[in-house]
Amino acid sequence: MEQRIIEQIEKVVGKEGYSIEPAVLYTYGFDASIFHNTPDIVVQPRTTEQVSEIMKIAHANRIPVVPRGSGTGLCGSAVPIKGGIVMAMQRMNKVKRVSVADLWVDVEAGCIYNDLNAELSKYGFFFPPSPGSAEACQIGGMVATNASGMRAVKYGATRDFVLGLTFVKADGEIVRCGTRTIKDASGYQLARLMCGSEGTLGIITEVTLKLTTKPKKSASCLCCFKNVEDAGKCISAIIARPLIPASCELMDSVSINAVNKARGNPLPNCGALCIVEVDGETDEVIDRDLKIVEEVANEIGATDVIPTKDKKLIAQWTDARKSVMTSLSALKPGCSSVSLADDMGVPVSLVPQAVKAFQEIAEKHNVTIATYGHASDGNLHTKMVIDPKNKDEWDRGVAAVNEIFDVCVNLGGTVTGEHGVGISKAPNFAKERASEMSTIRAIKAAMDPENILNPGKLDQWEGSILRNLRYPCPEYM
Amino acid sequence: MEQRIIEQIEKVVGKEGYSIEPAVLYTYGFDASIFHNTPDIVVQPRTTEQVSEIMKIAHANRIPVVPRGSGTGLCGSAVPIKGGIVMAMQRMNKVKRVSVADLWVDVEAGCIYNDLNAELSKYGFFFPPSPGSAEACQIGGMVATNASGMRAVKYGATRDFVLGLTFVKADGEIVRCGTRTIKDASGYQLARLMCGSEGTLGIITEVTLKLTTKPKKSASCLCCFKNVEDAGKCISAIIARPLIPASCELMDSVSINAVNKARGNPLPNCGALCIVEVDGETDEVIDRDLKIVEEVANEIGATDVIPTKDKKLIAQWTDARKSVMTSLSALKPGCSSVSLADDMGVPVSLVPQAVKAFQEIAEKHNVTIATYGHASDGNLHTKMVIDPKNKDEWDRGVAAVNEIFDVCVNLGGTVTGEHGVGISKAPNFAKERASEMSTIRAIKAAMDPENILNPGKLDQWEGSILRNLRYPCPEYM
Repeated sequence: MEQRIIEQIEKVVGKEGYSIEPAVLYTYGFDASIFHNTPDIVVQPRTTEQVSEIMKIAHANRIPVVPRGSGTGLCGSAVPIKGGIVMAMQRMNKVKRVSVADLWVDVEAGCIYNDLNAELSKYGFFFPPSPGSAEACQIGGMVATNASGMRAVKYGATRDFVLGLTFVKADGEIVRCGTRTIKDASGYQLARLMCGSEGTLGIITEVTLKLTTKPKKSASCLCCFKNVEDAGKCISAIIARPLIPASCELMDSVSINAVNKARGNPLPNCGALCIVEVDGETDEVIDRDLKIVEEVANEIGATDVIPTKDKKLIAQWTDARKSVMTSLSALKPGCSSVSLADDMGVPVSLVPQAVKAFQEIAEKHNVTIATYGHASDGNLHTKMVIDPKNKDEWDRGVAAVNEIFDVCVNLGGTVTGEHGVGISKAPNFAKERASEMSTIRAIKAAMDPENILNPGKLDQWEGSILRNLRYPCPEYM
Repeated sequence: MEQRIIEQIEKVVGKEGYSIEPAVLYTYGFDASIFHNTPDIVVQPRTTEQVSEIMKIAHANRIPVVPRGSGTGLCGSAVPIKGGIVMAMQRMNKVKRVSVADLWVDVEAGCIYNDLNAELSKYGFFFPPSPGSAEACQIGGMVATNASGMRAVKYGATRDFVLGLTFVKADGEIVRCGTRTIKDASGYQLARLMCGSEGTLGIITEVTLKLTTKPKKSASCLCCFKNVEDAGKCISAIIARPLIPASCELMDSVSINAVNKARGNPLPNCGALCIVEVDGETDEVIDRDLKIVEEVANEIGATDVIPTKDKKLIAQWTDARKSVMTSLSALKPGCSSVSLADDMGVPVSLVPQAVKAFQEIAEKHNVTIATYGHASDGNLHTKMVIDPKNKDEWDRGVAAVNEIFDVCVNLGGTVTGEHGVGISKAPNFAKERASEMSTIRAIKAAMDPENILNPGKLDQWEGSILRNLRYPCPEYM
């Protein structure tokens, strides 16, 4: 990066507000995806106005800018694939104001999810989406990827809570959109458009979220089945009762075995299981709903059903479920669990059909695929366990993944339910959303005519996803 | 309209699919707002493909097109202010598929809100927004205006239920956006952008909505107060407990008197009242919540508190509340209740302050203003009772309304919570959303470069709203 640009940036954020140290640049070239590319500078703004000034410099000099939360994203949305500026938001981390009677909270984009909920819990409220990276991920990143997690089936994804936000456009213009009222019918919902835009339309600096009350009671039921098909059928049948659970986590036998091996058997050994969480205002409601879950599971032919209100036991199950990804990496020496097709969504009733197809694809390509996830909203994680130094394993992995995505899209699903598109899903996103592409491109061109905001992602990725890998696989680095 | 264009349109929709009869054109020049303008042709398509073909004709000939639901809108969104084609969607009125286990329903844009809920109730589900025009309004219109109603505080507005939709762009391109999965992190949320776009970005032809379960129990509590300030304080205090009611309707003394006069005293005479509805899964929950409402109301100094589960009594209150608008028109001979500032939103805790300011403004301009509405989400209806033949009353009315909007915006509120911008709120919308205007205009230009989709509304209205009035006021017709 030219010295004169660095000097301009230093004038805006001061010496402590940026870095061009090689070690820092290297670190900020990663997120939690399979990709890496080194930026030219990392800037850590403290205010919306600083973001605006930096964008003016970038715009005048046609420098790419990639906004970054905590780097917990799994598909490369925050990897600076064209170099340039990484705009790291962690110093804008405050909960600015909780307005309880008005049901909203104002936060800076870099506020951590768990920190926000710690603050909201003082008043009996919460922000429900529950991403897996809750202890680290930032609200701005959640909005930018429309993130969610275990509780979306009942409570919705991030998009459903965004009342308004402040973002900075490519040319530095500061836009405050939406409202601080619960309802808002005023013209285009720009705040909702920014959800899922992954930094390609603007840099989100502040967010106004709607509050919701935290239910007073919850309980869980672990249901074991002979196979994933039965587990999937059980989930559809619970919803059709109708009962919308607070969450419902599915694990296949590959996931169960990996966790039991790595963690000392916290889960019953079975062909598949689901952990169904119910919540509500009183014990009476919880007991009624637990009974429905038990009944349905038995009707479907569950081999074991364990309803409980025991917080310790529930925590053990939740920890086990949350450890799938790391446990998979311990499954075979020299191998890692990598995020290729990591969060597809299908209609809930088609989960059994989808998982069966995934297993056939895994066999055909001779790869190990674990399937688990938030099954009550049809959102599945399929992690692949491969030797990341081996080109052939990557090739087979991507071939399998492309077929998995085809299955999902043919079943009326989506290539990404909660992590975003980034790089790893870009080619299949373009296939899934062929009908939307001309509109997406028109909006992108209208809002970022110089194409400096997170360029090369989403609709702009070209060719195979096997390049810029973070792993020591020389052919694809 | 040129004969050759009419012939092209007839080829697409047949003889029974359009009309140029003067009486029909006159009728379709209205919605429920204060405006009127006659279109050149009314087209009633039966399929998305027909809409697409009509748009190609319109695009090639630069003819304005205004999509129209049931014409229940209160701010002129469906009035064809530049003439051209009214695209009336009532023949596309089917519930296409309810997929219970997958938690979605596919409907055509012309499907009536109550018809959809009648179908969903068979399965224990509902689509909650509850607009005042529930028995007539169409889902496409609800999406286009991001409509809502009594239950938005607990359940959200239309935008929060839209998973995907099909729309036709200005040039006839058919776009299917969003998904039929509960979660979706794939790129720009075009379906949410279409919410509130009021026909200016495309013609919505089909919508996929998320289902939610209908609570099994509900009850209401009528609380009487000395004045609107106390009623407003009560609502804030209930929410801060925290208790989010299913709905909470506020009425000031002007509204109460009008209803009691027109309808034979269905309500207690008092300075202000609120009807708080609570819902949930069991009687235990309802009883607990009713008790909280009673307690809070008494703490604030309620003059009377009537909790009840009696469906007949609740229906009487609801009917009374729903009759405010018509009752106001019966208040003074020769006068009508007109929609000028009809659905502003302010933060809930500032409702008392807002209503006090409205009353002062009404006195200053010597106009009768009734305030009522969905107070738990800060969404207020202020209907003005004027002689609509009298230019001077319109002038005073609009002067008052502009001040009312200034109050709302200065309190951090919005000029429209649930009805949309259309014409009547356009000038104040531009003031409220000054920060968003360049982005709104860029998106509009990108998606409708020839400006044929509902032109002249939202950001494009110029000058005073006092023209094209439907009333016999010669100066403003």
